[in-house]
Amino acid sequence: MAVGMSTRATQAKAAVDIVTAFFGRIQALASDPEALDFTFGNPHETALPGLSAAIRTYAEPRSVDWFAYKTSEPEAQRVVAAGLAAELGLPFEPEDIAMTQGAFGAISLALALLTDAGDEVIVPVPGWFCYEPMLHAADLVPVRAELDAETFDLDVDAIARAITPRTRIVIVNSPANPTGRVYPASSWEALADVLERASREHGRRIWLLSDEPYRRIRFDGIAFTSPAAVYPWTLIDYSYGKVLLAPGQRLGYLALSPLIPVDERDELRAGLMPLGLAIGWGFPDAVMQYAVPQLETLSIDLEELTRKRDRLYAALTDAGIAVTRPEGTFYLWGRAPGGDATRFCDALAQRGVYVMPGTLFSQPHHFRISLTATMDMIDQALPRLVEVAADLS
Amino acid sequence: MAVGMSTRATQAKAAVDIVTAFFGRIQALASDPEALDFTFGNPHETALPGLSAAIRTYAEPRSVDWFAYKTSEPEAQRVVAAGLAAELGLPFEPEDIAMTQGAFGAISLALALLTDAGDEVIVPVPGWFCYEPMLHAADLVPVRAELDAETFDLDVDAIARAITPRTRIVIVNSPANPTGRVYPASSWEALADVLERASREHGRRIWLLSDEPYRRIRFDGIAFTSPAAVYPWTLIDYSYGKVLLAPGQRLGYLALSPLIPVDERDELRAGLMPLGLAIGWGFPDAVMQYAVPQLETLSIDLEELTRKRDRLYAALTDAGIAVTRPEGTFYLWGRAPGGDATRFCDALAQRGVYVMPGTLFSQPHHFRISLTATMDMIDQALPRLVEVAADLS
Repeated sequence: MAVGMSTRATQAKAAVDIVTAFFGRIQALASDPEALDFTFGNPHETALPGLSAAIRTYAEPRSVDWFAYKTSEPEAQRVVAAGLAAELGLPFEPEDIAMTQGAFGAISLALALLTDAGDEVIVPVPGWFCYEPMLHAADLVPVRAELDAETFDLDVDAIARAITPRTRIVIVNSPANPTGRVYPASSWEALADVLERASREHGRRIWLLSDEPYRRIRFDGIAFTSPAAVYPWTLIDYSYGKVLLAPGQRLGYLALSPLIPVDERDELRAGLMPLGLAIGWGFPDAVMQYAVPQLETLSIDLEELTRKRDRLYAALTDAGIAVTRPEGTFYLWGRAPGGDATRFCDALAQRGVYVMPGTLFSQPHHFRISLTATMDMIDQALPRLVEVAADLS
Repeated sequence: MAVGMSTRATQAKAAVDIVTAFFGRIQALASDPEALDFTFGNPHETALPGLSAAIRTYAEPRSVDWFAYKTSEPEAQRVVAAGLAAELGLPFEPEDIAMTQGAFGAISLALALLTDAGDEVIVPVPGWFCYEPMLHAADLVPVRAELDAETFDLDVDAIARAITPRTRIVIVNSPANPTGRVYPASSWEALADVLERASREHGRRIWLLSDEPYRRIRFDGIAFTSPAAVYPWTLIDYSYGKVLLAPGQRLGYLALSPLIPVDERDELRAGLMPLGLAIGWGFPDAVMQYAVPQLETLSIDLEELTRKRDRLYAALTDAGIAVTRPEGTFYLWGRAPGGDATRFCDALAQRGVYVMPGTLFSQPHHFRISLTATMDMIDQALPRLVEVAADLS
């Protein structure tokens, strides 16, 4: 008798297995207080006092319905729309915003709104390792489009080649995990041309999902253009989990580009609440929604993050390691000395330094270092990184 | 060009439309301070101080990773498993528990674990109006099985007739929304026989999803048996949102029956984390997970709830309204005087009393009253309920 997990669950689980296995190994670190953990984008310093203060403040009920069912709270929508309008120069309205449990929730909502079982969704490689499990769970077919192998720029031709009549969504991610690249407006213009042509050719609109959780984590004042300003059929997902470095408190949103033609935008707007309910009540906790006005302007210290990037980038480059200079995100992406990511990461782990092998991003020759580590951790780890690189080169 | 929402999104939205329309009408009430709102199971009194205190306590970081990514927190799993073991007399282990964003999240996780697109899921009628939208969003086919039309007992024969080779899950709900019924162990035994036979006949295991958010809200000490104790292939979903009367702070779990054969249980256990991630990071906020030990024993005042049930039940019965005496939940389910739920609810609304028409449960002759209203609201509403009933009878 057929008993256990479904086919789509089995596929989703298989897509997570490489992460789960790595995660399990990292959790074992918890028992070693000397371990230097540069793996996931998790905090290594005490949380922002402003976050704790906001949660404490809004834990106190101000009305009888304080903890009643909350869909997207109007004040949260208003603050997000105003913030996005100022940031992206586009006339977002509160009704364009669905409050979600982080970017994961926003991506789930976008998939639920736009896709049917069997649709294809194009994902960047290297790219976030959770896109594919989420697509499998939603009965979708991930189709990989490689970024430029040297620069990790968006490769619009690769996306064009990946498009088929079943393509429904193209996911883009800038600032990009794991490469730290921020794509220029010209990339979006080229991509918009391709998507517009392909949509007309296949008689079905291809949507863009712009995954922007790192949007506010950029270095050196580099300009940012959202594809939502270039290609009208764009949805933006965002998480406060990065800029607050608090992914355990789920808060984010899905935003409809105000350039979406009005009839189509109205249809999607009307779908945001029902689909938010239908995917499993995907709205953030009441307290987190009340806190949005306070959290909207809160951020980790980007100057300190820049110093950490600069120190690691300079030291690794000096040691002869090929590193992509991050323009945004809190990751540093490099080519593993000796060419074998697993060997490099294992050798580092033996010296108590844990970095993420590129194998989690289907890139067995690369590694990722999280800049959420402290400067002290960086100081301790650098000599070992340099030593291992020398051994393996 | 095909542009807007997907087919499954359109189906899910259509299934929510009746709720959305009603919800919109109720939200308009917010501006009327005199309105007596007996519709949704939302709080009408200040939240439990213990809930606010717990949130405030755990808003304060005790480690650098306090707000890091959290899957199911081991301490929360341990407390839930111990609580369930004591409550249901079954040897739950912490690994059987997936922490979720309320019962919605737990149902989503169960669907993701067990079903493939096109599978059929049997739902009770009358039953919670969110099952069907959730099933559509997950590409599943809702199949309705009517409860007994008079007693609203489980009708095992109706479930047996609804089973086909595509049936993958049967959803049951006790204490039952909207009827307030609590089903006896004998119902589960009869259902288990049917499911076991049908599973063997079709060569595919039919799972039971026991939706138990009202499990701790029972009157007069009535006994409770979970079907997880009778039919091994049972998953339990639970929400703290009912017993805390705080559905805006998402906290719940999915529990695997310890009676599931060990190989199958191991497979599902291994799927809980990956699928929790893949459905959109369906884990509760860090603060809510830390609070589980404190929240586990917290509850609204069940004696006061009993008094409200007794007062409403007696007064409505005296007025000649046929009401099902609730054994659990915070709902009172009755037959609309005159036989037309919409007419009855509209007439009440004209007198400032808002109750939920049975149309939301596909029962156009019935209505539901939420006992989460205050005794003062009940005192004010009762004469108008009696008056309208007399007018329409």
